[in-house]
Amino acid sequence: MTTINVSDTVRRGIREIREELVDLHAELRRNELVVWTAGNVSARVPGADLLVIKPSGVSYDQLTAETMVVCDFEGQLVEGSHQPSSDTAAAAYVYKHMRHVGGVVHTHSTYATAWCARNEPIPCVLTMMADEFGGDIPVGPFALIGDDSIGRGIVATLEGHRSRAVLMAGHGPFTIGTDARDAVKAAVMLEDVARTVHVAQQLGATPRLDDADIDHLYDRYQNVYGQKEGNQ
Amino acid sequence: MTTINVSDTVRRGIREIREELVDLHAELRRNELVVWTAGNVSARVPGADLLVIKPSGVSYDQLTAETMVVCDFEGQLVEGSHQPSSDTAAAAYVYKHMRHVGGVVHTHSTYATAWCARNEPIPCVLTMMADEFGGDIPVGPFALIGDDSIGRGIVATLEGHRSRAVLMAGHGPFTIGTDARDAVKAAVMLEDVARTVHVAQQLGATPRLDDADIDHLYDRYQNVYGQKEGNQ
Amino acid sequence: MTTINVSDTVRRGIREIREELVDLHAELRRNELVVWTAGNVSARVPGADLLVIKPSGVSYDQLTAETMVVCDFEGQLVEGSHQPSSDTAAAAYVYKHMRHVGGVVHTHSTYATAWCARNEPIPCVLTMMADEFGGDIPVGPFALIGDDSIGRGIVATLEGHRSRAVLMAGHGPFTIGTDARDAVKAAVMLEDVARTVHVAQQLGATPRLDDADIDHLYDRYQNVYGQKEGNQ
Amino acid sequence: MTTINVSDTVRRGIREIREELVDLHAELRRNELVVWTAGNVSARVPGADLLVIKPSGVSYDQLTAETMVVCDFEGQLVEGSHQPSSDTAAAAYVYKHMRHVGGVVHTHSTYATAWCARNEPIPCVLTMMADEFGGDIPVGPFALIGDDSIGRGIVATLEGHRSRAVLMAGHGPFTIGTDARDAVKAAVMLEDVARTVHVAQQLGATPRLDDADIDHLYDRYQNVYGQKEGNQ
Repeated sequence: MTTINVSDTVRRGIREIREELVDLHAELRRNELVVWTAGNVSARVPGADLLVIKPSGVSYDQLTAETMVVCDFEGQLVEGSHQPSSDTAAAAYVYKHMRHVGGVVHTHSTYATAWCARNEPIPCVLTMMADEFGGDIPVGPFALIGDDSIGRGIVATLEGHRSRAVLMAGHGPFTIGTDARDAVKAAVMLEDVARTVHVAQQLGATPRLDDADIDHLYDRYQNVYGQKEGNQ
Repeated sequence: MTTINVSDTVRRGIREIREELVDLHAELRRNELVVWTAGNVSARVPGADLLVIKPSGVSYDQLTAETMVVCDFEGQLVEGSHQPSSDTAAAAYVYKHMRHVGGVVHTHSTYATAWCARNEPIPCVLTMMADEFGGDIPVGPFALIGDDSIGRGIVATLEGHRSRAVLMAGHGPFTIGTDARDAVKAAVMLEDVARTVHVAQQLGATPRLDDADIDHLYDRYQNVYGQKEGNQ
Repeated sequence: MTTINVSDTVRRGIREIREELVDLHAELRRNELVVWTAGNVSARVPGADLLVIKPSGVSYDQLTAETMVVCDFEGQLVEGSHQPSSDTAAAAYVYKHMRHVGGVVHTHSTYATAWCARNEPIPCVLTMMADEFGGDIPVGPFALIGDDSIGRGIVATLEGHRSRAVLMAGHGPFTIGTDARDAVKAAVMLEDVARTVHVAQQLGATPRLDDADIDHLYDRYQNVYGQKEGNQ
Repeated sequence: MTTINVSDTVRRGIREIREELVDLHAELRRNELVVWTAGNVSARVPGADLLVIKPSGVSYDQLTAETMVVCDFEGQLVEGSHQPSSDTAAAAYVYKHMRHVGGVVHTHSTYATAWCARNEPIPCVLTMMADEFGGDIPVGPFALIGDDSIGRGIVATLEGHRSRAVLMAGHGPFTIGTDARDAVKAAVMLEDVARTVHVAQQLGATPRLDDADIDHLYDRYQNVYGQKEGNQ
């Protein structure tokens, strides 16, 4: 096992993230977003060009803080005794090019992936979508795993977009967030709206919300909803 | 934390409701009506123009009797150390204008919300719907959060209607009940009939029940079903 | 609480059935066939014209052997401190008129009830249906609760039919079995085939099995499958 | 109970497999691939022409290492106090004729079985399908239980095919693997893609992946993904 030379603060950050990722992968399962080993959460390490991510092909039951791996922004392993997730290159590219992103989640959750299989964006027909994503959920390009194509597709689609979710064509969804927990929340809410809009459209047309209403709802939710800092 | 000046009886009522709301939010989850923090239960405080409701943006795992908040019928916080749910104004309006309502539930449950996305009422095609809701489930107007529009839409739709559930257009369902548990039951039964009628209509037409049969079933269920008081 | 005068053997039988019914109602829930209180299991008491059934409107969490009630074949309560299930008259009629039936189950399970809402039989398109039900699942008449109409509809449909399940129009499924456990198995398998055939027909036609193949499969399954007595 | 005369090594192998099969049947349930007793896992015994399989008609709750049975490649019981699964003949035929197969799974999982009911292959429209199955999931012939017809249909369809899953017409899926766990993984992933592609096609067309992309993804996944030996 490789160990990297970093400051004590960064080391503590890595330790905390390793533990949080165990909880967040459990959250993916509890929300039925993943089967077998098909999905992962990663997080940016504060104060370093590093990320922590799930090891490849390890079952969720066997995930511990120790099995998580640390990689640099080229996707190369810098600490850990397992191979990093196949999706590390994609996540690394996002962290490198979107500096406000602190967490990335990839799943093959059923309904979101079904929209991916049709290469079809999810239209904003529910207030919850306006609140959470600020509009439609966009489609990203089909890209093969193995280089930075997937990462580039994610960044090109989400850069400057309100949505924290992208539907990669023929593949599955990726979500981003200010931290890993926020990206997991986006993955959960994405599957929820993907399913609800799917079900709605099975029996008829779903009118899109007005843009002015979407703007109003998005602005309010981002600025008013939830507890103020120090409140919880 | 603010504390209000109320009689001992009202204080005991608030204490009991805070605890009951923990159980009832767990019931929402157990019936898979909510994801993340997207749904809430509230209850009228007996003997006072007050309600108790879920705090905003707090996860169901972290809900305790202490985290619940007390508000007046303008939706203003009067007791509690958290911000009240975003839906407090809507619930408060209902308690103020429908004096027989003791509980209000709001969710984004998948199938009920799908009917909301199409602005389509659920037709009464099953005896269970006649029993529980006395007819079709009506659609309420599209309304933005932030003032009393949602509350007004709920009251205007349900006032004088047998149904304890309303499908708010482009948003999601609200249910009411004689107390909070009854409103949760309505939310559970609503999602069940919303799903079953949806599934039925996917493969063909579903004949509506005769009005006379609906009346007969509704009357019987409201007056005969279940245990007599003191029986349980 | 009323207590009836019966032989010790019958009394022991009632005791055993009360306990078994607790397990079998848990099985309904585990297989997601019921929500809230909407479904029940009953059993014939060996050696007496009596049945044991779930009390009305009592939640599954609160069911114990003591809460179950004993009724005669007119559906009248003969032992127990709760009101019997609303479906007691229907079950009683079945026990009275189909002497080989030892258990009756009623649910509103989603997919089976969806076929009921369309008044459409489930065609025998899978070997599992041939094994378990020996052909199509038939539709029974629409009937109001309150007298023996539902019971008569069940018996008229299932008398002389291989199927242990009937889809009561606009209402929901009833299943019968040699004992209560067998009727619960039929309810579980019914929902499974109702869902699978529904899903299959959503995307195209499903060829029905040949009658000769259905006969072959049904005969084999009834006579060969499972463990011989004394074997387990 | 019959006991066979085998080497100590083979005996230890049988013991380990009996225990592993308990875990793997639990995995079928956890992934909701089976109801009641309708599905089974078997495994080849290393170093002998024997297999271990679930007993017939025994509930998953009652399965223990001791209840599993050992059969030869004609499907005949050679060790165990229960009747072997009805699907033993099919599994035995596969082990006899496909020497690289170490595990066979049969379920009636909803979405895979729905494709079986339409006799329709699942097209390769998602990267996950290319990774895991290397292309479309093929349909096998309709075959009656009772002789080696089902086994022959499985072998004829999967021999020389990349897919580890076959959709037996009007019946349900069978999956194979290098060992029992690998066959269970295939059953889990099959249901996942069967469901996702079904959902996708409900609302529109799903473009098939290019053959060159499928080849690239399949090759990479088989050779790069997961942990190297000794790594875990």
